[in-house]
Amino acid sequence: MKEFSISTNKKRQMIDVTDNINKALEEMRAEDGICQLMLMHTTAAITVMEAIEENGSDLLDALDSLVPRLKYRHDSDPEHPKSHIMSSIIGASKSIPVKGGALYLGTWQRVALLEFDGPRERTVQASFIKG
Amino acid sequence: MKEFSISTNKKRQMIDVTDNINKALEEMRAEDGICQLMLMHTTAAITVMEAIEENGSDLLDALDSLVPRLKYRHDSDPEHPKSHIMSSIIGASKSIPVKGGALYLGTWQRVALLEFDGPRERTVQASFIKG
Amino acid sequence: MKEFSISTNKKRQMIDVTDNINKALEEMRAEDGICQLMLMHTTAAITVMEAIEENGSDLLDALDSLVPRLKYRHDSDPEHPKSHIMSSIIGASKSIPVKGGALYLGTWQRVALLEFDGPRERTVQASFIKG
Repeated sequence: MKEFSISTNKKRQMIDVTDNINKALEEMRAEDGICQLMLMHTTAAITVMEAIEENGSDLLDALDSLVPRLKYRHDSDPEHPKSHIMSSIIGASKSIPVKGGALYLGTWQRVALLEFDGPRERTVQASFIKG
Repeated sequence: MKEFSISTNKKRQMIDVTDNINKALEEMRAEDGICQLMLMHTTAAITVMEAIEENGSDLLDALDSLVPRLKYRHDSDPEHPKSHIMSSIIGASKSIPVKGGALYLGTWQRVALLEFDGPRERTVQASFIKG
Repeated sequence: MKEFSISTNKKRQMIDVTDNINKALEEMRAEDGICQLMLMHTTAAITVMEAIEENGSDLLDALDSLVPRLKYRHDSDPEHPKSHIMSSIIGASKSIPVKGGALYLGTWQRVALLEFDGPRERTVQASFIKG
């Protein structure tokens, strides 16, 4: 079990964390199995995507647009509750196969952290489970 | 592998099941690894969230508002198909890291069952996988 | 670790892949544990649902309707970026419990591949982790 931190510097942001996870897998001497990822926060998420900047902006814009601006109870400012809702829609935990000590992903796939309420310091926890 | 039941008492409801899962982990004599959760139903879901009541209501309202009221095929009443769609958006299975025999979560994180078509009796299945 | 391919033949499509996964589990001589599924693509997804055709069409229609048609950066045609966004909302990786060598699902649950940008050849990777 390894943890690493990511500093986000915008309110909403997509950050490719694939290399951070592969480094954690190397430190855990992972071989074949699965990597369980857990983002320890409720206003951010983890997804698998083609993590180029334009796709990150498209996804963040789409989420902002699709989550309605209701009269939320959690906060009079609808923006903060929206970040919680986006986090539940995308999810804070993901499992990814590991092969030869590294994440086993498709050609265009990367693992990305989505910040919905930054800038903040975010912690990602990675576990390796032998297959 | 342990199962527990949750009785929901509203049409849509958020119920914190973190303590139920930790009890199941204790019964399985879990130590470090991951907990695989599976909700055995297609009109409810499991999420990781700050499971206070106002956040639950906000999330359920947002999902109700963002899933469109289309002319669905599955049922002439659009409410029942909507509960299936919400279930696929949030997801019925989640993996969470386990440390020292209990779920390893961030400060504000809890595991919650989301009921979209209650009241019903819901079954959650928890597996422990050694890390 | 086993892979199998699915050929989709429509732009958007739901395909029940439960039998394919159970066959892969049998080939891996799985017993009790979890099955980690990874769809190796960024414009498709995997979900657990009641995988009858009308539900598939309902879900695909709802996703099409809820993801906004914005002026996306990734492509001047908003349809292609939408398929990426749907993939992140539903997710490309899922873990499912395995009991007696087969997926352990609720009465109405099946595992389905959702195609958002077909027709294409899609690869699903399945790992078995002993519980």
